Amino acid sequence: MPNQKSNKLSVKSRFWIKGEKGTFLGEGRILLLEEIGTHGSISKAAKAMKMSYLKAWRLVDSMNSSVAEPLVIRTTGGIGGGGTLLTEKGKKAVELYRKLKDKSDLFLDEELSKLSIQFDS
Amino acid sequence: MPNQKSNKLSVKSRFWIKGEKGTFLGEGRILLLEEIGTHGSISKAAKAMKMSYLKAWRLVDSMNSSVAEPLVIRTTGGIGGGGTLLTEKGKKAVELYRKLKDKSDLFLDEELSKLSIQFDS
Repeated sequence: MPNQKSNKLSVKSRFWIKGEKGTFLGEGRILLLEEIGTHGSISKAAKAMKMSYLKAWRLVDSMNSSVAEPLVIRTTGGIGGGGTLLTEKGKKAVELYRKLKDKSDLFLDEELSKLSIQFDS
Repeated sequence: MPNQKSNKLSVKSRFWIKGEKGTFLGEGRILLLEEIGTHGSISKAAKAMKMSYLKAWRLVDSMNSSVAEPLVIRTTGGIGGGGTLLTEKGKKAVELYRKLKDKSDLFLDEELSKLSIQFDS
């Protein structure tokens, strides 16, 4: 008879997408891109995440230099004095990560269920 | 034309199997179980991992109290004065984690390859 305790196993995961130079995307970087998309500003995005501007800037710089097309660009001039934009490539990066995360969560849940049966027996 | 840089994306992941009381298995805990299996001693396993005996003992205690049957047991007496054994359940836990890790790595690699094509286009 399977025991009650181990029937309630669940799985939590984290992953990082790496480029040639090291980490390209991870949960924190994606949250930053999403906040930049929302606020149109690295400074406001950093504040929303309680992250220093310098750290946010470095993460953006690291992501931008990992791929040929930048994920985040600065716009200058205009009424608001310019700002920061999430490019189409940036939006695609967020989408890629979120899709992979969803698929991974689903996969791990299913596989854990299957393996748990063997573990309990 | 897909760019050269983002064609070389790879994925690195970590996961934790959680029980009702929190983390049950993770990479460090599994390495500890494997070392206990090898050395037949929590103390020697801890040394091999450059971990304090107290930390190793706490991790074992946490794993043992997460499931109905213990993963690690102490044996007393005998010529060697007793020792520590990885139980069949303990061996199953290692096997469950390693299988899930292998499947997860394979799955993430495949999914990243698929999604990278969309990302590059």
